[in-house]
Amino acid sequence: MATTNADQIFKEFREHSAAEFFKKNRQMLGYSGQGRSLVTLVHEYVTNSLDACEEAGILPDIEVVIKKMENGSAINRYTIRVSDNGPGIPKVFVGKALATIFAGTKFHRYMQQRGQQGIGAAGCLLFSQITTGKPILVKSSTGKGKGYSCRLGLNTANNKPVINDMVDIDEDFRGLIVEGEFADIRYESGEHSVYEYIRRTALSNPHAQIKLTDPNGQESLFVRSVKELPKRPEVAMPHPAGLSTNDLLEFAHLSQSRKISSFLVDTFARTTQNKIGELKEIDNTIDFDKDPKQMTWEDAEKLVNAFKKTKWIAPDASSVVPIGEKQIKIALKNILNPEHMSVTERKPRIFRGGIPFVVEAAVAYGGNSGKKEEEGYSGNILRFANRVPLLFDTASCAISKAANDIEWRRYNIDMETQPVSVFVNLSSVYVPYSGVGKEAIAQEDEIIDEIKLAVMEAARGVQRYVRGKERISFDANRYKAVARYVKQLSSDVGDLTGADKAKVEKRLEGIISKHFPKMKEGQEEKGEQDAAEETEEETM
Amino acid sequence: MATTNADQIFKEFREHSAAEFFKKNRQMLGYSGQGRSLVTLVHEYVTNSLDACEEAGILPDIEVVIKKMENGSAINRYTIRVSDNGPGIPKVFVGKALATIFAGTKFHRYMQQRGQQGIGAAGCLLFSQITTGKPILVKSSTGKGKGYSCRLGLNTANNKPVINDMVDIDEDFRGLIVEGEFADIRYESGEHSVYEYIRRTALSNPHAQIKLTDPNGQESLFVRSVKELPKRPEVAMPHPAGLSTNDLLEFAHLSQSRKISSFLVDTFARTTQNKIGELKEIDNTIDFDKDPKQMTWEDAEKLVNAFKKTKWIAPDASSVVPIGEKQIKIALKNILNPEHMSVTERKPRIFRGGIPFVVEAAVAYGGNSGKKEEEGYSGNILRFANRVPLLFDTASCAISKAANDIEWRRYNIDMETQPVSVFVNLSSVYVPYSGVGKEAIAQEDEIIDEIKLAVMEAARGVQRYVRGKERISFDANRYKAVARYVKQLSSDVGDLTGADKAKVEKRLEGIISKHFPKMKEGQEEKGEQDAAEETEEETM
Repeated sequence: MATTNADQIFKEFREHSAAEFFKKNRQMLGYSGQGRSLVTLVHEYVTNSLDACEEAGILPDIEVVIKKMENGSAINRYTIRVSDNGPGIPKVFVGKALATIFAGTKFHRYMQQRGQQGIGAAGCLLFSQITTGKPILVKSSTGKGKGYSCRLGLNTANNKPVINDMVDIDEDFRGLIVEGEFADIRYESGEHSVYEYIRRTALSNPHAQIKLTDPNGQESLFVRSVKELPKRPEVAMPHPAGLSTNDLLEFAHLSQSRKISSFLVDTFARTTQNKIGELKEIDNTIDFDKDPKQMTWEDAEKLVNAFKKTKWIAPDASSVVPIGEKQIKIALKNILNPEHMSVTERKPRIFRGGIPFVVEAAVAYGGNSGKKEEEGYSGNILRFANRVPLLFDTASCAISKAANDIEWRRYNIDMETQPVSVFVNLSSVYVPYSGVGKEAIAQEDEIIDEIKLAVMEAARGVQRYVRGKERISFDANRYKAVARYVKQLSSDVGDLTGADKAKVEKRLEGIISKHFPKMKEGQEEKGEQDAAEETEEETM
Repeated sequence: MATTNADQIFKEFREHSAAEFFKKNRQMLGYSGQGRSLVTLVHEYVTNSLDACEEAGILPDIEVVIKKMENGSAINRYTIRVSDNGPGIPKVFVGKALATIFAGTKFHRYMQQRGQQGIGAAGCLLFSQITTGKPILVKSSTGKGKGYSCRLGLNTANNKPVINDMVDIDEDFRGLIVEGEFADIRYESGEHSVYEYIRRTALSNPHAQIKLTDPNGQESLFVRSVKELPKRPEVAMPHPAGLSTNDLLEFAHLSQSRKISSFLVDTFARTTQNKIGELKEIDNTIDFDKDPKQMTWEDAEKLVNAFKKTKWIAPDASSVVPIGEKQIKIALKNILNPEHMSVTERKPRIFRGGIPFVVEAAVAYGGNSGKKEEEGYSGNILRFANRVPLLFDTASCAISKAANDIEWRRYNIDMETQPVSVFVNLSSVYVPYSGVGKEAIAQEDEIIDEIKLAVMEAARGVQRYVRGKERISFDANRYKAVARYVKQLSSDVGDLTGADKAKVEKRLEGIISKHFPKMKEGQEEKGEQDAAEETEEETM
């Protein structure tokens, strides 16, 4: 066989930009399937608007308009426009903010926000370029006299913005309007729809007002049910207990402090001069007077080991702002109008040694809770991370895992048949998403355990109510269960013994029906069906 | 509330490198959990070695040595060394090849390979830097007189390699040796272990010889069972039926051809002068004499629409090279030594309109198939993409989805209790992984459907064999099923009527035991347990 040598192979060597990578692998950003792609687009823009409004201290007013285009093409083509009343984007930043992958104000800040990657808006632009070749139309102003509009493209070869038709605008408005043309997407209804995404966003953001106009012209207004902005999360100082050697070293090399001791006190949470004294006692070979810029890996490792041997006060929770019990109740009432609900807000916890997070959970019963099935209902799980609804990748999410691990029957809840909604929101400075598309929280043990505790607590709150509901139909179910066995046993006995099935059945029914005279009518047919299904499984 | 204006907010604006992004989000590369992180490291290096050997026409000989380090630190620290007999990396490329994210020979080529992202090796380096602060030690040679060794780091701020201690080596060897120090990982046994990863790699690469030395010094040699290299996949020409407007436009603007007609014929598969004639008839407004560099989005869109109205010959399968039925049989016999197996190789198909792929499936019964449970066995699914075993993210993978959608009882197979292994390998020029960590194939309908067909075909092949096995225990199971109902019904009837449960039970047993005299002993206890479990669910 002819072999190829390395020099020949490496003629093919190339470097690529992040934009090229995600253009080729758009499913990793959430652009897989027409329905999901449309939700991803709306999700990215709405999330950015909410973050921007809150950072600027503005009650969000957001409008989403989706129109189907008539262009005779086989591919589904839509325009999407999202506008907000936020702070706007300064003209000099617009290209970087909306048309560069891995750029933004959020990635490096240790602060609770919806966005944390610097990918979202640039990903939308990438998707419009791939599917329609069109730039995104932007109109923004940061205040009177600072308005402008332009068309934004993204040069995938170098991940740089392409700005065209920049025009100053002299209107008196403040905010951001983005409008794009996208194809290979589809407006759908149901559990994974834009409507559902916005409904859930309203649920977790009762302080926001959001209006959706769908391609049929149907307008849905989710009104603001709370007139206060959420408390502003503070930029957190990292907690020493969660630091890796590498993190510590990087912080040290960027530090302006003259000594390691002052660097530690200035940079990390819960680190006082007293603590420095404790650390000195734990390891007296550490030189706390050294210039932090000169810190070596070995120095850092010693410090991290000393951190582990110290008792720390938990991280300050002021960096994590949950929705709050009262607000969740108002929102659930507003959106689900349940017969009964129970809300739990847990205390802040930490994962990976030092990243603070807070879990809130609610269980709602009745009203618009759960999912309408052809016959009756089933339960559903409403997942949120930093108030952002997670609609996809259910199977790999820590919230689903936790909810499914719960033995619901202990709480008299049947997720298969009852109108139950389980609401979970995880708030954190850093949410460990399992993928770039940010649709699932990685299944870290500490997070799963905490979610379970929160949901179980909420479940206990509705247990008594559900039990009352349950008792009413208990006798009927009991009869059905017994009737099922009669059917099945008669049939099996018949098969085995050759005895007349009808006779056996009659004999067994005789025993029971004396004690359940009211139940017999109208239940038989259903009982028979269930029995037949069960047989198939039993004899598999 | 004090509002913050946009200028203040945008003071925080930053750009980040891909390296910084993945450093912060290492779980997206597969570095989540200590066990999985170790498997990811081995996976990245072994995959690169196999690709390199095959590209150079060399039968792969790969050695993996994992050693635990004794350093008193609380964090699990190991060295991992992977060496191969491949073509080596030319000195000038080593930094880019192993220490730059989004660089390599694979990303841009339309060709079936294991790697396709240009992330793997740089991700390993990132992980060693984060966890131990150490560079990777590299020794390589592309032939006599071209050997060298060096230490490689990665500057995350700009995603550039840092090369130190470069030394020429005058040994007569060819290949690549990488050795790194990693912490926060753990060598584990079981289904998600390095051993299992290598065992499965051997299964899907019978032409490779792989030796693993684990931290206990235990050596496992997976010998080469096939002495021929797989047929080399050819670089494919993209098929017109799968082109997006954007793709077509990008190809056109890079083209050296003078006319659109010759550009199309030169660039795309199955596109002849005759086809150009057909396309002209479909849309006579397209100017095929235009310079492809001048092609507009509208031109491209017209062409794509015309492509859709043309009948195309399916893509040439020479770009996709499956393992092959014979080789799979040899490998399965070698690794699982099953009592019975059935292998299916399907014809090439396409997804997303034009990307060719081939699915191979096998069902193996008995021997080392399936998973040993505390009592008995259960079935398992061995997932592969381009011969690479996929061990994690099972729930989100198209292969799991397809396998779980199959009604196994139709084939007399019970995945809960039988020693069955289902093997699936998907080969393609482009595998649509759901995440950057490449552990699951995105659930695209066309792929799921094809996998289902392949697995069902293989399942039919073992059906008769399993049925024979089954019949032997059929009567016993039948008795057990009936006995379960007797127990349950007696108990329910007792509860309802107040009748003596034991009496009811005896009466019912009387009917049956006459006809099943041999079965009674030794089955009762198990029957009772099952019935008790079932009761709990019924009365939930």
